[in-house]
Amino acid sequence: MTQKKNKHYTLREETYTGDKSELKPWQVKLHTLIYEADTPSGKLFDLILLVAIILSVLAVMLESVVSIQQKYGGVLRIIEWAFTILFTIEYTLRLICISKPRNYVFSFFGIIDLLSIVPTYLSVIIAGSQTLLIIRIIRLLRVFRILKLVRYVTGAQQIIRALRLSFAKIIVFLGAVFVLVCILGTLMYIVESPESGFTSIPVSIYWGIVTLTTVGYGDIAPVTVLGQVLASIIMLIGYAIIAVPTGIMSAEMVSQKIKKKKSNTQVCSNCMHGDHADDAKFCVNCGESLHI
Amino acid sequence: MTQKKNKHYTLREETYTGDKSELKPWQVKLHTLIYEADTPSGKLFDLILLVAIILSVLAVMLESVVSIQQKYGGVLRIIEWAFTILFTIEYTLRLICISKPRNYVFSFFGIIDLLSIVPTYLSVIIAGSQTLLIIRIIRLLRVFRILKLVRYVTGAQQIIRALRLSFAKIIVFLGAVFVLVCILGTLMYIVESPESGFTSIPVSIYWGIVTLTTVGYGDIAPVTVLGQVLASIIMLIGYAIIAVPTGIMSAEMVSQKIKKKKSNTQVCSNCMHGDHADDAKFCVNCGESLHI
Amino acid sequence: MTQKKNKHYTLREETYTGDKSELKPWQVKLHTLIYEADTPSGKLFDLILLVAIILSVLAVMLESVVSIQQKYGGVLRIIEWAFTILFTIEYTLRLICISKPRNYVFSFFGIIDLLSIVPTYLSVIIAGSQTLLIIRIIRLLRVFRILKLVRYVTGAQQIIRALRLSFAKIIVFLGAVFVLVCILGTLMYIVESPESGFTSIPVSIYWGIVTLTTVGYGDIAPVTVLGQVLASIIMLIGYAIIAVPTGIMSAEMVSQKIKKKKSNTQVCSNCMHGDHADDAKFCVNCGESLHI
Amino acid sequence: MTQKKNKHYTLREETYTGDKSELKPWQVKLHTLIYEADTPSGKLFDLILLVAIILSVLAVMLESVVSIQQKYGGVLRIIEWAFTILFTIEYTLRLICISKPRNYVFSFFGIIDLLSIVPTYLSVIIAGSQTLLIIRIIRLLRVFRILKLVRYVTGAQQIIRALRLSFAKIIVFLGAVFVLVCILGTLMYIVESPESGFTSIPVSIYWGIVTLTTVGYGDIAPVTVLGQVLASIIMLIGYAIIAVPTGIMSAEMVSQKIKKKKSNTQVCSNCMHGDHADDAKFCVNCGESLHI
Repeated sequence: MTQKKNKHYTLREETYTGDKSELKPWQVKLHTLIYEADTPSGKLFDLILLVAIILSVLAVMLESVVSIQQKYGGVLRIIEWAFTILFTIEYTLRLICISKPRNYVFSFFGIIDLLSIVPTYLSVIIAGSQTLLIIRIIRLLRVFRILKLVRYVTGAQQIIRALRLSFAKIIVFLGAVFVLVCILGTLMYIVESPESGFTSIPVSIYWGIVTLTTVGYGDIAPVTVLGQVLASIIMLIGYAIIAVPTGIMSAEMVSQKIKKKKSNTQVCSNCMHGDHADDAKFCVNCGESLHI
Repeated sequence: MTQKKNKHYTLREETYTGDKSELKPWQVKLHTLIYEADTPSGKLFDLILLVAIILSVLAVMLESVVSIQQKYGGVLRIIEWAFTILFTIEYTLRLICISKPRNYVFSFFGIIDLLSIVPTYLSVIIAGSQTLLIIRIIRLLRVFRILKLVRYVTGAQQIIRALRLSFAKIIVFLGAVFVLVCILGTLMYIVESPESGFTSIPVSIYWGIVTLTTVGYGDIAPVTVLGQVLASIIMLIGYAIIAVPTGIMSAEMVSQKIKKKKSNTQVCSNCMHGDHADDAKFCVNCGESLHI
Repeated sequence: MTQKKNKHYTLREETYTGDKSELKPWQVKLHTLIYEADTPSGKLFDLILLVAIILSVLAVMLESVVSIQQKYGGVLRIIEWAFTILFTIEYTLRLICISKPRNYVFSFFGIIDLLSIVPTYLSVIIAGSQTLLIIRIIRLLRVFRILKLVRYVTGAQQIIRALRLSFAKIIVFLGAVFVLVCILGTLMYIVESPESGFTSIPVSIYWGIVTLTTVGYGDIAPVTVLGQVLASIIMLIGYAIIAVPTGIMSAEMVSQKIKKKKSNTQVCSNCMHGDHADDAKFCVNCGESLHI
Repeated sequence: MTQKKNKHYTLREETYTGDKSELKPWQVKLHTLIYEADTPSGKLFDLILLVAIILSVLAVMLESVVSIQQKYGGVLRIIEWAFTILFTIEYTLRLICISKPRNYVFSFFGIIDLLSIVPTYLSVIIAGSQTLLIIRIIRLLRVFRILKLVRYVTGAQQIIRALRLSFAKIIVFLGAVFVLVCILGTLMYIVESPESGFTSIPVSIYWGIVTLTTVGYGDIAPVTVLGQVLASIIMLIGYAIIAVPTGIMSAEMVSQKIKKKKSNTQVCSNCMHGDHADDAKFCVNCGESLHI
């Protein structure tokens, strides 16, 4: 069971139930339906939820388009409430069929599930007492519902492992990039006049990031000769150092791939230690002969 | 023969003929001309077709340029019909020289070959009964003729294999990027005013994709301080996570390359030592000749 | 101790003290506080300095924003002087607690530390005698204080080593890119008219760098057909050759990673078999305990 | 000698002299000066030429700036002639000190050396008889002098070898990208109206290349909803498939690096075969014991 779960859930196993014997029979049944995707009814439950998530996020997005809001505002409100009630039922069901609800509530998915229903209710409660901006922001938080999709992502473990292993190095790299951009941005601020858009150091740093990451909006662009020379240098630096995060990640993934390949499937008959090298004659853990 | 074909056709072997004995002599001859590129006449046939494909696609493209259309419209129409008839003959020939035409018709290349002749005929048939837009679209579908070129691509197998092996992971990655962009786009919609181009969440998400992929048109760009800070973060994320697909693909290709190198299956007849280099003439372990 | 230092300081160890016996007891105490981050008071010292650096750089940046300068100019000047005095005290302390101050003064961090206090004093001294531009530039040099942060970067050794090993190759690559851009820029200058922005060869080369590095501001863009064809070729070249620095860096990092993994130097005392995994407890060749 | 040359010249060895015994003593002396960089005088010769190349290219570039041309036109013309005469002397010297001048004349560097002197003379000869455009183009060809710099590039062998090995695959990749862009460009032409810049299929394809390579000028940008959706897909494809050339190059370079490491320096005492694996006990070529 754990194996299957490992394959299905990416970020972490959702086992909020310490001991199933504490649960009543109907709770066990519900638990199987909601938390396990192997049964046909469990798969149907997942599918319905998946479609509901996508449609509800789409509705929130379309609501922000003025012309659609004016035309179909009423329909969208009804849809919104329908999905909110559906997600509320889902949240309640998830809560009542596990023995340790507290673990679920404070888990990543528990918070996401709560965040996807609270804004709709909140927008009613505080309707009169708050400014429109606050209400608007609260309503838009519903887009975070899209994070419910993370439950259904399969096969991202290797990427996530590589990202986690490379995270520290990539943060160091981005830190170095930031220091570089601060200095280059200041130089550009000195070199270029405010007329060409470099009105202050923070703006120049913003331009530096836009340039170094090769985004290049063009809303701010150097016009003086010296500025263009400096900008060229920044671009070439950006073009060359993109190799750094790429190299880090490649090294991590290549090493994972090679490691995976080299570990053969043999398990020591004495200590059950696996992951032996292909040409190993004795167990590295207990010294037992591997009888190849 | 299969080997040669493997080298010539990239995507898949075009063997629609189950049993050549079912074919008449002239069919076998035609089959060799059309489906096999090893004979001089087969090579000539391929070359003529190659040039015809490129010229006909070029004609379709030039037709869309207003000034050229006005000046050379008549010439282009004649060229168009010439190529359509040529491709119709080709399609017919391909059909009549194989024992199982059905397999060809529903194959990738069968559909492409049909798609490259149908639009011209269709535009005549439905000329009066349909709107101009439909006719225009149908006529432009002729550009898909360029896919006929895929037949002539050599040496892409390794790339395609790496792409196929990495496909699932890259889709997961793009899905994660999309979820990220939805959330960041919504935040930008909250932070920025509609005046600066962030008129709705879908537009903000579009801007998010433009920024994260480092395309950066600049038609929509943040103007508020908070918006520029958020945009800077999106750019740095985009600059850092491009390492993910790159790492995936690098790992796949490095592992293919290493595997390929190690693939010599020869075992020494004296000491049973394997894993010899491809060009080894004597066993590295005992000095026995490897009799290649 | 050396080990710890190695872990803490990235660029190089800061050991400017040849022989600690030359120092008086209070100097040794001060030295431990300032140069070693392992003691609680040393950590506090580092933390205060870290915050001071960030705040002081932030102050310099905000000073360049006209609206903030007009409103909070006085406050920023006081903050500026406070930090300058703090950094002056730091510099003095660093100097007096080592036996060979000369080594520190001419080290990377010595120069940075000096550069972060000199501009403020200099702007007072030369206030009347110089043009405003010079004073402005000197004042902005204070942004280089951000380089003091480099002291606190941990875990960048591997990146720096890979960068150093690849440096020569990446410079050669950038040189080749520059030669390419010079030629392509000149061709664009011939092809495009000055009206579309290609007013001279240097400007065309600037545009070439903007395009090849995929930054793409759009302030200068080709309008003629031939110009767009040439630009397309430049873009595709830029899109393809970004693989070169990336490949160099990946190769360097993969090779470092593999080397690192293989680096266990332990040799079995029984059969002299080496190349053991780091966590191996028994020899894979003869089963002898490795006595870790 | 060959070894040294290999290290110094990147693209290929410049040995146009079949047999040095055919040369007179002064020719041998001159040959050493010009073609070999190991002697002090040879190094000086190289340095002077290097500076001359850079300055002369700079002069050509500056001549294209209208304001500089008007002010310093006369000076630039004198400089131009000085360098042309210098390069003419160099070309003559290179010719007279080798036994097979024909080989040099038709070599890469021979053509470049000739190309860097011809335009100046030609612009005088055809001054009256040709249009200004032709003269302007001929004069600008002098920028190709920058290719003379290639002689002095050191340490690019590994990059060039990796590029050569990956060349076919990268061309296939760029071909596939081009086919993709043709189809996506046509779809955009159908979807978007000519008002937003998509005036013809060729222009739409140009836009497709600008977008897929993540350059993103922004001179042409989609405005319809469907167009923006399609553009988003193109961008995400471009963001993902940049991994392909990167992966190809990384795999090539990693494999070169690993191969280089694994080949030890031992040479067989019997057949002089090198490049043995580290743990080889017998020569793979002749079976001779390697006596490790």
